[in-house]
Amino acid sequence: MAQKPSIPKGTRDFSPIEVAKRSYIMNTIKEQFQLFGFHPIETPSFENSDTLMGKYGEEGDRLIFKILNSGDYLNKVDDVLYGSKDSSKITSKISEKALRYDLTVPFARYVVQHQNDIDFPFKRYQIQPVWRADRPQKGRFREFYQCDADVVGSKSLWQEVDFIQLYDKVFSKLGLEGVTIKMNNRKILSGIAEVIGASDKLIDFTVALDKLDKVGEEGVKKEMLAKGISESAIEKVKPLFNFTGDTSEKINKLKELLVSSEEGMKGVEELEFIINTIAEIPLDKTSLDLDVTLARGLNYYTGAIFEVAAPEGVKMGSIGGGGRYDDLTGIFGLKDVSGVGISFGLDRIYLVLEELNLFPDTVAQSTKALFINFGKEEALYSLKSVHQLRRSNIVAELYPDSAKMNKQMKYANKREIPFVILAGASEMENDNFTVKNMQTGTQETMNLEELELLLK
Amino acid sequence: MAQKPSIPKGTRDFSPIEVAKRSYIMNTIKEQFQLFGFHPIETPSFENSDTLMGKYGEEGDRLIFKILNSGDYLNKVDDVLYGSKDSSKITSKISEKALRYDLTVPFARYVVQHQNDIDFPFKRYQIQPVWRADRPQKGRFREFYQCDADVVGSKSLWQEVDFIQLYDKVFSKLGLEGVTIKMNNRKILSGIAEVIGASDKLIDFTVALDKLDKVGEEGVKKEMLAKGISESAIEKVKPLFNFTGDTSEKINKLKELLVSSEEGMKGVEELEFIINTIAEIPLDKTSLDLDVTLARGLNYYTGAIFEVAAPEGVKMGSIGGGGRYDDLTGIFGLKDVSGVGISFGLDRIYLVLEELNLFPDTVAQSTKALFINFGKEEALYSLKSVHQLRRSNIVAELYPDSAKMNKQMKYANKREIPFVILAGASEMENDNFTVKNMQTGTQETMNLEELELLLK
Repeated sequence: MAQKPSIPKGTRDFSPIEVAKRSYIMNTIKEQFQLFGFHPIETPSFENSDTLMGKYGEEGDRLIFKILNSGDYLNKVDDVLYGSKDSSKITSKISEKALRYDLTVPFARYVVQHQNDIDFPFKRYQIQPVWRADRPQKGRFREFYQCDADVVGSKSLWQEVDFIQLYDKVFSKLGLEGVTIKMNNRKILSGIAEVIGASDKLIDFTVALDKLDKVGEEGVKKEMLAKGISESAIEKVKPLFNFTGDTSEKINKLKELLVSSEEGMKGVEELEFIINTIAEIPLDKTSLDLDVTLARGLNYYTGAIFEVAAPEGVKMGSIGGGGRYDDLTGIFGLKDVSGVGISFGLDRIYLVLEELNLFPDTVAQSTKALFINFGKEEALYSLKSVHQLRRSNIVAELYPDSAKMNKQMKYANKREIPFVILAGASEMENDNFTVKNMQTGTQETMNLEELELLLK
Repeated sequence: MAQKPSIPKGTRDFSPIEVAKRSYIMNTIKEQFQLFGFHPIETPSFENSDTLMGKYGEEGDRLIFKILNSGDYLNKVDDVLYGSKDSSKITSKISEKALRYDLTVPFARYVVQHQNDIDFPFKRYQIQPVWRADRPQKGRFREFYQCDADVVGSKSLWQEVDFIQLYDKVFSKLGLEGVTIKMNNRKILSGIAEVIGASDKLIDFTVALDKLDKVGEEGVKKEMLAKGISESAIEKVKPLFNFTGDTSEKINKLKELLVSSEEGMKGVEELEFIINTIAEIPLDKTSLDLDVTLARGLNYYTGAIFEVAAPEGVKMGSIGGGGRYDDLTGIFGLKDVSGVGISFGLDRIYLVLEELNLFPDTVAQSTKALFINFGKEEALYSLKSVHQLRRSNIVAELYPDSAKMNKQMKYANKREIPFVILAGASEMENDNFTVKNMQTGTQETMNLEELELLLK
């Protein structure tokens, strides 16, 4: 009756070394979250369907995993509806719960539900898996972790400054050089829309502009014209075609360009404050850049927009992102609570560290010493020392069976255990151990105290 | 359009302090798992339904949360079956995935699926949530964590010894005194069944015997007779009615009782080895006891059976359990792989530590210093120091808004932040800070270096 075992597509098993590497990244992020004053919360894996449905657009609704009601669930569907065999209409009758799709909506729900227990501004972080019924492909999974930090209850731009510093500290701690934190502001985009005379063309505009590197100025203009952006509008935003230089030069260009747009100028002012402040508290290993083509999450961000780019040369999409949203909790009835947050892309950061060989060798705390099992008496003698070593935080093990020496050595070899400890009659008599260094092949005799020193 | 937010019954939100306390327990367990040479794995939250269904009995099948297929899932149900409106038959047509019900079956699946990459004996630990559509009640949830450690690929009793030590070390590290590790052996139970002349009466027998404390010897006998256990059988196992004394006395009683049962004597021998070995490597804060009424998981354990009892006086069921199973991976086609494992009951351990007030005060790493925000210039001056302090692993924050002093102080108070730092024009001029101790109310002026020393 044996089944050939497998797992659902888009999901993953993580082996010990993979868990160790993922934990290394998550712990690094967590440590900085905490140093920056963020507190962890956790929400249930599934929410009531009406908490999630309608929050991510039509496409999002389709990608939410629904959980079937228990018991005789079909009994509750009325016969006429049942007769229609219409999946889309019957779903809400046979499924009342759904798996978390992201951490943002559950966070908003949490804030509203627990508002009386929360001291605002509330700085929370959350590292939990989310699920999406997306078509699986390279680097896209149906179950993956999100690592989010958000502040709600303050409109202060000091938060944006702190988040940029937080990104910098995490990537610096991970040893990742050359990361760029790209920033934009929704108000800049609105200003551009004003200048080109049509908000509905804004996406077309940024998409075309983003191709500047590839197709050149003429190519971009051509695309813009094709999308119905007028010649005169294009002329007005010409400075964006040569949007180079350091951030302060870029700020100056934007000031010129957006002078006629009140909202645009407000965006420039916000960007300027952030950039000037970061200049006073320099970043360690990342750099901050201004990217007016950044239109990420345009529908809900209202202020700053962030996106983090992997070092040049590593082919990888963004490894983080975030921004400010002025009315996140409004959907659950709590108005006027501004929030700003960032997210780390765990899976992609993993791939980048792997590609650049940046995981420390010590990432997997593995066994330092394997004691060979020569039989009952010898094993007991060894096990006593194993426990002594563990008390000193040294990972030590006794091979469980008194198997052939060869088999036990092979096990140590395969698991890359650096020291094998042998204790037979003569060692027991002299209260010592023969210690074999598996790398050099040399053997030495020593007592427990010396062994402990060697392994530390 | 606001919804009143809530979460599904049987699930929980965890606040920052709850997450911190849960992490404290999980990290303590994890640390010992690693010291004992166990490696972490993780498996997907949902498995293919056929991996899980049929593995937990009929009741278990009902309690497994099923995930609805995506798209027009009803389209794939043939019309005759659909017409039956029979939930139990239609489920498998509209749901191909299900949420993990425990960590044991996914672990068995993992071992079989990855057998070629695994070096046996394989020592793994796994700390992940599981889901059960159980009726929620006090202390029973629909989403909860399991913390398991198992070894597969060795029949050695040294493993059982190591697991008892592992229990001891975890509960000792948690500062929990008076925990009892109760042990039995499936072979002892089989021996008793032989002696009382009926294996089918074994459960009735242990259930009745377990009431000895409450109803006395006569009460137990009465129940046994009522259940159809003969007078002469009861006479034979009379020593169990006075099953007191230390473990070696208990062993002697069992030897007398089970002398006629080969399997029973094998069980006694196994118990004796474990008890004698533990006597040589004494436990720190827990004690080992022999409990022949322990029949936990009778259907799959084949050797040792463990159950951990909270300290006397704390009203709480078992806070851990485990045992040896000789054919876990057989269900997935890999025969003859013996395993043994234990599990920690996170939620109950949490309640015990809470009741006994055993969580360390330092469990939540919270903000040490809040810098008051007096406006742009002052905030920048403060933020520079905030970053300096964070570099020294001190959790420091700048209040994000230049709100009224009173509001900022209130925030510090509510969040129990021990030091509030004030820097206005005069401090900026003298390159120092006014530091207010929130507990004593005293104020002091000092430079950054002194502040760093104070906060460390």
